[in-house]
Amino acid sequence: MPPLLLSPVAGDPWAARLAATLGWEEGRLELRRFPDGETYLRFDTPPAGREVVLAASLDRPDPKLPGLLFAAATARELGAARVGLVAPYLPYLRQDCRFRPGEAVTARCFGHLLSGAVDWLVTVDPHLHRIASLGEVFAIPATAVPSAPVLAAWIAGNVPRPVVVGPDAESEQWVAAVAGLAGAPYRVLAKERRGDRDVSVGGADLSGLEGRTPVLVDDILSTGRTLVEAVRCLRAAGLPPPVCLVVHALFSDEAGAALREAGADRVVTANTVTHPSNKVDLAAAIAEACRAFVPEA
Amino acid sequence: MPPLLLSPVAGDPWAARLAATLGWEEGRLELRRFPDGETYLRFDTPPAGREVVLAASLDRPDPKLPGLLFAAATARELGAARVGLVAPYLPYLRQDCRFRPGEAVTARCFGHLLSGAVDWLVTVDPHLHRIASLGEVFAIPATAVPSAPVLAAWIAGNVPRPVVVGPDAESEQWVAAVAGLAGAPYRVLAKERRGDRDVSVGGADLSGLEGRTPVLVDDILSTGRTLVEAVRCLRAAGLPPPVCLVVHALFSDEAGAALREAGADRVVTANTVTHPSNKVDLAAAIAEACRAFVPEA
Repeated sequence: MPPLLLSPVAGDPWAARLAATLGWEEGRLELRRFPDGETYLRFDTPPAGREVVLAASLDRPDPKLPGLLFAAATARELGAARVGLVAPYLPYLRQDCRFRPGEAVTARCFGHLLSGAVDWLVTVDPHLHRIASLGEVFAIPATAVPSAPVLAAWIAGNVPRPVVVGPDAESEQWVAAVAGLAGAPYRVLAKERRGDRDVSVGGADLSGLEGRTPVLVDDILSTGRTLVEAVRCLRAAGLPPPVCLVVHALFSDEAGAALREAGADRVVTANTVTHPSNKVDLAAAIAEACRAFVPEA
Repeated sequence: MPPLLLSPVAGDPWAARLAATLGWEEGRLELRRFPDGETYLRFDTPPAGREVVLAASLDRPDPKLPGLLFAAATARELGAARVGLVAPYLPYLRQDCRFRPGEAVTARCFGHLLSGAVDWLVTVDPHLHRIASLGEVFAIPATAVPSAPVLAAWIAGNVPRPVVVGPDAESEQWVAAVAGLAGAPYRVLAKERRGDRDVSVGGADLSGLEGRTPVLVDDILSTGRTLVEAVRCLRAAGLPPPVCLVVHALFSDEAGAALREAGADRVVTANTVTHPSNKVDLAAAIAEACRAFVPEA
């Protein structure tokens, strides 16, 4: 029997999307809330003896986590051979050290919770900064699928004469990879963060880019503050309206409007988090990583 | 140093309430959401070497659970001597067996999750039905504080010539205890449940109750369907408008209005779940159970 893909989050498209890409079975997991707010969960497709793969993006995570943990525990209880998790967006990786005394290092707490719940994990471009690899956060085998090749292919196919721009030093390595794969030059701006919503972006040498369209690339778009400042900086330097290309679309309508107002041409995102701006499909790349965990399928 | 009471749920009154009752310290746990929906958490009061008690009602549980688990893990990481949990309302106990194949037994999943997170647990009247005791669900020492003595005292002080009425057979043992402590007679109605929101309540011998005020007692008020039917049944039998006395107030304004419309005199609840109808204070009873876990304080 093929592996069994199930969605532990109501309405999430990833189980169906991966079933279609991989030719695996999409099972039915009944999932609803009781009137008192508790989660009800039932495997309509029996998981006994099967490779079970729970797939859902975990943006806005807190209300989704109990159902996910209950689904994983129940799959094991009902005799699943193994339980894997595909979370194209994995939350809680930004709080990866104790910046102030007493803070919860939620990356570690979250990693511990998931490591006890599932046998393996696939995600896309985890926001690892001070932590070098998923192995420092998760005690289970975990694959980080890189979006760079797919982003680079999108740039090459959609933006004539691009220059790839990173909004901050943190993004340099990643932006260099995307630019290299797209056969384009790149620049990196400098960012200063003063709080959750207060960010300024400063200078970089933007000369020699005549006739090029800037493509601002970032891994997460949330409040949009970082990219808004980067768009302003590029426009102030006389460059044409930049395309904003982002992997994880965590942003509100408000942030999208602020980007356009600041002078962005358009905002294009990958489909790790479902959003109207999704244009870059990572299903094939994620599917490949899943196949590596379940080779017999 | 006295034990440290902290609220792992923003706005929950129980840490402050128990600190006042017990004379323990109420510490500060900073708790907020990042713009992307993740929880930020910081111990403003260092927990190192201390008996830490996290206190909050866990109604509408899913968005509250990640923060609670992160708080418990972080308290341990920061060197807390022990971490206890006071959850005056404990969710997920109603799904205590597999009614249909494939269902998650969330009582067991939830019990496993909390048992790994904290060292001891205090709650009030857990909704145990097919499970005989908290020990079958939790692998840690757990105390179920009975509300019956406090409910009985409230009845004795506020309702002249009461008759205590249970809405269903499930409530009999508990209603008998409340009635006994209040020195009042009791009756038990019969309930038939056809779905989450579809309930009918039927006959019991209601003769010989002339001049008595019925007090309908139940542990949980959620959709209100059970109590609405019970109120109608008592009114149809010619009894005066009943007082509805409930422990855990999980209900909406709508359910309260439906009860008054059906002919209830008023709805009175204990304060395990914060609600405008709270009139019965369980702080002293819960405090006593906490003292048993932290006797040196």
